[in-house]
Amino acid sequence: MNRADAQQLDAADTLAPFRDEFVIPDPEVCYLDGNSLGRLPRASQARVERATQHEWADGLVRSWHDWIDLPTTIGDALAPIIGAQPGEVMICDQTSVNLYKLAWAGLAASDRKVVVGDDSNFPSDRYVLRAVAEAQGAEYREAKIDPTEGPTVAQLEAALAPGDVGVLALSLVAFKSGALADCAAITDLAHRHGALMLWDLSHAAGAVPVALEATGSDLAIGCTYKYLNGGPGAPAFLYVRREHQERLQPPIPGWFGHDDMFAFEGQYRPAAGVRRFGIGTPPILSLRGAQPGIELTAKAGIDALRAKSIQQTELLIARFDARLAALGFTLGSPREASQRGSHVSVRHADAYAITQAMITRNIVPDFRAPDSIRLGIAPLYNSFVELWDAVEAIADIVESDAAAPFRSDQRSKVT
Amino acid sequence: MNRADAQQLDAADTLAPFRDEFVIPDPEVCYLDGNSLGRLPRASQARVERATQHEWADGLVRSWHDWIDLPTTIGDALAPIIGAQPGEVMICDQTSVNLYKLAWAGLAASDRKVVVGDDSNFPSDRYVLRAVAEAQGAEYREAKIDPTEGPTVAQLEAALAPGDVGVLALSLVAFKSGALADCAAITDLAHRHGALMLWDLSHAAGAVPVALEATGSDLAIGCTYKYLNGGPGAPAFLYVRREHQERLQPPIPGWFGHDDMFAFEGQYRPAAGVRRFGIGTPPILSLRGAQPGIELTAKAGIDALRAKSIQQTELLIARFDARLAALGFTLGSPREASQRGSHVSVRHADAYAITQAMITRNIVPDFRAPDSIRLGIAPLYNSFVELWDAVEAIADIVESDAAAPFRSDQRSKVT
Repeated sequence: MNRADAQQLDAADTLAPFRDEFVIPDPEVCYLDGNSLGRLPRASQARVERATQHEWADGLVRSWHDWIDLPTTIGDALAPIIGAQPGEVMICDQTSVNLYKLAWAGLAASDRKVVVGDDSNFPSDRYVLRAVAEAQGAEYREAKIDPTEGPTVAQLEAALAPGDVGVLALSLVAFKSGALADCAAITDLAHRHGALMLWDLSHAAGAVPVALEATGSDLAIGCTYKYLNGGPGAPAFLYVRREHQERLQPPIPGWFGHDDMFAFEGQYRPAAGVRRFGIGTPPILSLRGAQPGIELTAKAGIDALRAKSIQQTELLIARFDARLAALGFTLGSPREASQRGSHVSVRHADAYAITQAMITRNIVPDFRAPDSIRLGIAPLYNSFVELWDAVEAIADIVESDAAAPFRSDQRSKVT
Repeated sequence: MNRADAQQLDAADTLAPFRDEFVIPDPEVCYLDGNSLGRLPRASQARVERATQHEWADGLVRSWHDWIDLPTTIGDALAPIIGAQPGEVMICDQTSVNLYKLAWAGLAASDRKVVVGDDSNFPSDRYVLRAVAEAQGAEYREAKIDPTEGPTVAQLEAALAPGDVGVLALSLVAFKSGALADCAAITDLAHRHGALMLWDLSHAAGAVPVALEATGSDLAIGCTYKYLNGGPGAPAFLYVRREHQERLQPPIPGWFGHDDMFAFEGQYRPAAGVRRFGIGTPPILSLRGAQPGIELTAKAGIDALRAKSIQQTELLIARFDARLAALGFTLGSPREASQRGSHVSVRHADAYAITQAMITRNIVPDFRAPDSIRLGIAPLYNSFVELWDAVEAIADIVESDAAAPFRSDQRSKVT
């Protein structure tokens, strides 16, 4: 395989036109961090401007007529991307707050007093799960997981076996390695042991097909600013399977989750359906910014995106083998396409400095301590040839020791 | 007094030039709902556009360098408006989530197991306080308050007297009547009975001077989208008095509250200072939208704003007496200027329909069930003469029965 083959793949790529749906001020920048913050959709630019100029400035409070249902309207647009039904998804709050709400509600509704998580999960998730368990006088039990492989039935079985687990909460795609867990098998494991299954889809939504309904997954949360291109810190989502909606009680009752919010009743009465998990007035400018990226993802189709993502991660790994393996790198992601999401981690003792050198060459990945460079692939706007070139540049950085000037600075603020 | 006098007041108004700092697409609209959603500052328009075009599209993840400290940078800008010190205020999450965090942390740090609230508070606050108490196996005790007068020492004393109260949580300005509580006296009451004082400043911040430091107030939360003109659903703020910051533990631990967020440690270690109350990645577009309104408020000066607000509410009440009292209206706000915030409620059996008729005449108040019309005064952009004209229009609506067509529709979505 050579660079011309990568160009051929671009020429044949039916998703290539979607790149034009994004604002790309400098086409020389190879952006491999869509797994952290996706690019700005052109439609978001227009929609945020309209939200500011027309809805806020002109409509003022009268615009609540259009805003009030946005959390569930956008949730319904997201539903097919994660295999949910309309009425099961809501956009609100931030990821950790949503995790808190659903883990709390799931555990409180159970007579079991254990939450199981895993030690490869995103740290915030681990903090929140532990906090929820402790606040309910329950135990937080953490399965030890091979960080490259991600959670598997075999590694989780022992934590579930005592039959005392109320909620099993895991990330479907691991934030560091990109490992993709087996949603169906692990959900089945949870159910066999009488636990609810709660997925964090932050690195999965828009990157891999998720079958929440089909797998029987009970609860899910995730962020919208990665593969869904929702904008920096855009509100997160939550999913509550329909059969659980009426029996779960939100721990933070707010007026946006009230059955009749403008009646200003003294007692909280949860709204029917997923809306009860709303709390306060949502940040509209950020919500409007998030809407088009979700719509674009739905339009492209998650199966088409996944097919291209697999082609692209395969190309990256082939180029890793050809160029990086001999330069002190090891692969930090699963080799088997079916076991990984849409980013590939490469590990190197000098990873932080190499990341900084890449940025000076207009290649933007991100660094995850202590030694991972994450190369995120967003099939909506990444081309095959830029992946080829990025690996060549990484190899050149190491071969020419271009990372040397960055070795003293040890902290990245890239999220 | 006549209309020319109102014009005279406008001519002498040193704050009048601030109106030009706002985008006002239709100068014919008399906007009396800044107590619900403030107008769009011109600088917010520019700053949101820059955040979208340059920070997101161009800078991408590299913009976190500028974004990461925004919650406390904007918090510091807000601090003088509410009488706090730098390092005591943070912008994050929504009002109810912040109330949950601080009520939870305050109660958990106390050996008392009672939270006291009041039945005139905003319903969401009541729901949250009750939920926090119940989750901690504590009691939520609600003082019965005259809704027009708002909470007073005399009305609260009995609830505090048993000496078992950990947290007293009230709104400084009542959402319905606009009654302004005595911050110093009630905080003193709480302290005399061994309770922490937690204020909801949603209807106070930017409307009245608040002396959090000077009164010894322990905790506060509030929203930024009312008198602070932060934009629809803009992130809320929280205040934790410096002496409490190290001893209070946030109930929802997240990576934005971690001492070293990019170290990705498996255990939560709270950040020093107010930052520990951050949870997840904040919604940047909405944060950027909120920044200029807070800066404008600080620039105008809360004392100057309060002086004009009092002049304006006095004018409104004088015109109420002259024109509305004979038309079936009663005053739903305190007559004494020192006892009210920056909105005046007028009550009428036909309030909902009258509100709708006002909107058709380009006067935008809001309706609060069952019978209140709230006339919110934002001294940054409201003129004296438009208040005069608004009262004349209300009188004309009732005298000509222009509200008749709206009597059948009974639900307002105006927030």
